[in-house]
Amino acid sequence: MQAPPTSPLLTDLYQLNMLEAYFEQDHAETAVFEFFVRKLPARRGFLLAAGLEQALDYLETLRFSDADIAWLAASGRFGPALIDRLADFRFTGEVHAMPEGTAFFENEPILRVVAPLPQAQLVETRLINILHFQTLIASKAARMVLAAPGKQLVDFGLRRAHGAEAGLTAARASYLAGFAGTATVLAGALWDIPLFGTMAHSFIQSYDSEAEAFMAFARARPEGLVILLDTYDTEAAARLVTVLAPRMAAAGVRVAGVRLDSGDLAVLARRVRSILDQGGLEHVTIFASGGLDEDDLAGFTKAGAPIDGYGMGTSLVTSSDGPALDCAYKLEEYAGLPRRKLSTGKATWPGRKQVWRRYDAEGRMTGDVLSVEGDAQTGEPLLQPVMRAGRRIAPSPPLAQVRTRAAAELARLPSALARLEPAAAYPVQVSDALARLAEATDRRHADQGARA
Amino acid sequence: MQAPPTSPLLTDLYQLNMLEAYFEQDHAETAVFEFFVRKLPARRGFLLAAGLEQALDYLETLRFSDADIAWLAASGRFGPALIDRLADFRFTGEVHAMPEGTAFFENEPILRVVAPLPQAQLVETRLINILHFQTLIASKAARMVLAAPGKQLVDFGLRRAHGAEAGLTAARASYLAGFAGTATVLAGALWDIPLFGTMAHSFIQSYDSEAEAFMAFARARPEGLVILLDTYDTEAAARLVTVLAPRMAAAGVRVAGVRLDSGDLAVLARRVRSILDQGGLEHVTIFASGGLDEDDLAGFTKAGAPIDGYGMGTSLVTSSDGPALDCAYKLEEYAGLPRRKLSTGKATWPGRKQVWRRYDAEGRMTGDVLSVEGDAQTGEPLLQPVMRAGRRIAPSPPLAQVRTRAAAELARLPSALARLEPAAAYPVQVSDALARLAEATDRRHADQGARA
Repeated sequence: MQAPPTSPLLTDLYQLNMLEAYFEQDHAETAVFEFFVRKLPARRGFLLAAGLEQALDYLETLRFSDADIAWLAASGRFGPALIDRLADFRFTGEVHAMPEGTAFFENEPILRVVAPLPQAQLVETRLINILHFQTLIASKAARMVLAAPGKQLVDFGLRRAHGAEAGLTAARASYLAGFAGTATVLAGALWDIPLFGTMAHSFIQSYDSEAEAFMAFARARPEGLVILLDTYDTEAAARLVTVLAPRMAAAGVRVAGVRLDSGDLAVLARRVRSILDQGGLEHVTIFASGGLDEDDLAGFTKAGAPIDGYGMGTSLVTSSDGPALDCAYKLEEYAGLPRRKLSTGKATWPGRKQVWRRYDAEGRMTGDVLSVEGDAQTGEPLLQPVMRAGRRIAPSPPLAQVRTRAAAELARLPSALARLEPAAAYPVQVSDALARLAEATDRRHADQGARA
Repeated sequence: MQAPPTSPLLTDLYQLNMLEAYFEQDHAETAVFEFFVRKLPARRGFLLAAGLEQALDYLETLRFSDADIAWLAASGRFGPALIDRLADFRFTGEVHAMPEGTAFFENEPILRVVAPLPQAQLVETRLINILHFQTLIASKAARMVLAAPGKQLVDFGLRRAHGAEAGLTAARASYLAGFAGTATVLAGALWDIPLFGTMAHSFIQSYDSEAEAFMAFARARPEGLVILLDTYDTEAAARLVTVLAPRMAAAGVRVAGVRLDSGDLAVLARRVRSILDQGGLEHVTIFASGGLDEDDLAGFTKAGAPIDGYGMGTSLVTSSDGPALDCAYKLEEYAGLPRRKLSTGKATWPGRKQVWRRYDAEGRMTGDVLSVEGDAQTGEPLLQPVMRAGRRIAPSPPLAQVRTRAAAELARLPSALARLEPAAAYPVQVSDALARLAEATDRRHADQGARA
């Protein structure tokens, strides 16, 4: 199953305004744009790059349909300089990017587009929209993975995600960051992500008694049976499970787990564990959910709560403590000349950049150098070519492989960063070559200003 | 143009697990579910209902495609009890709802579904996903509208919205709450929302000088020309506009506005206003953007900053200070008997409910009564029938009409609530009839527990 491509009208009006101006004036030399995060959000010591596969899908399939063109023509906003060129409009540029699952830091580009200015400009809005969200969620999910080592984390967030695409891509981003899977069926269908699901309170409420509901569910869903305990009284329900287990066993059904969804989960987990164990159900796992975030997970880990897995919802899929990244897609070069904007608080590094990463003898990251592309530094260059002439150079790696890379990245983080409260900032050094390029760019701009 | 329907696989796995159990056991009596918000987020004194049109679209078009069914069958998770019934699966129930744009409060249902249990259950995840997000954003947008009376507010949020659908429906939700329009072209195409757009920094950076860039844009986009000032130096750019205005006028172009996107906007707006006025450009409006939220707007309003309109991005489309609502879709009745769950902190009011709203002589809201459907209270009953036998009773109202209703609702709010910090809680009274129904439900449940 494949996600349908989105219309190129999923963009800001000003992109089309600028496109028309560029076409009219044949202002279409090669432009270089880079996507980066200006500043890490509070409590974040690193971010995980995600969304590249969908970004490349978007660039490869970018087409104005007949309906798109007809609507634009009928809007009366645009002349033939724009309208007549849309049917043949394609993205023909090249893209460099960090592989998905790579850890990155402030001001480091994770994607670079090199294309004729009209193309590189038009794609800005949707490229940001795709990369921003998946990076946001993968980075949030990584915190949860770090806070609950060895536990099974499952994305339960679709209902509170911001729309359909957010629900789907949050499942993808959290899986690549180390989650065990998702409850969202369509995400499983699209990306082969393991699916998890139990039962709802409404199932239990619709029967005259909990016992009747538990037996009904056991008969209908004998595989991997997980029973929800908190509809009325969690401990009473746990005792009921021990009473019913022999009847279920007689019907060939083995209880696999129970789920707690409200109350003081650490306390309830201990009591339920003890009830289950005394009832001979030592093999039954305990799964917890209900408004949890990574701080809750860290608390359970510290307390040694006997919980085997967690369903993570709202806090994951909205990145609730910081629902956006301060990111940008900025013009760094046009017609062979480096460019930068100087807006207060938003000045950028000009030119085509590369990030070199260095490691210690144990393979831990020790620091990055941000430099210009040609300036060979020691270390691993993180931006790699992924698209040429509008086509992928190689198929995007399977999600499982991205997930393996992300796990390796988390293991390579400095220990001061691999925690919920970063104890230090990661060192990112600006190379002399890049500093000189920025100065030269400013000098050229000042000279032009003096001449104007 | 119409948004494509989403696959019913956009749901939680447990919905399909329960569906199979219900089919196998023919457990398919009439169920009543209601959608409501348990608790208002911090600093919110009211919410605005939104998303009903898309929720009804979803219910009307709900179908499992051949591809959906093939994928489910191949997954090996389900037997013929489920698979064989999906091709004919339709939503055939009835829906009551508050009209979009209605103000509502804690524990008040804004939508009620009455349908055979398998249908009413399956739609839970996507119904919440649709109603939650648009309600969240309409409610956030209403705060911005209240904070900037008489100003033109425009949604600029697509790039930081959580995916495509969030960007689109945030444009819709903010427009219905009183925004003037959006920058998102596809939202304009889908719902006839006015579109706004200026130019990007990259446009200016791609020319050798700001003067050249401004003239190029003026020639290409002469209608409603808005010039972006902050790429290099905002005040210098404002002076440049006054210098270029006569040349633009000679080319038949009149500058309509300027945009500020960084720096101390209140201070810059005054300086720019003064530069423009001294240059004979009193008619040129000032538009501001750049990481603004409703508190910034209130500050500009209080300071009397000479800003005519605002572009609202991240804070709007992510509802950044509270990116989710504590909402639920809960079973309230099954097979003619009222139901409730008693989970700690999450107990619900059972039965089919109605909200009656009362007004004072000036038409201001004075308080609501939450009761059971048949219990005629004084006041205006807010839940109205909108769907019968799976079809809309009448077409959804045009968005412009919803917007008019929302404006009337904001005008009818108690003044203690029509502000950024609510000074009082809105009175919502639980009727005697509802309290008695809850007691009777608990008594019945306790009796069943005793018998079990």
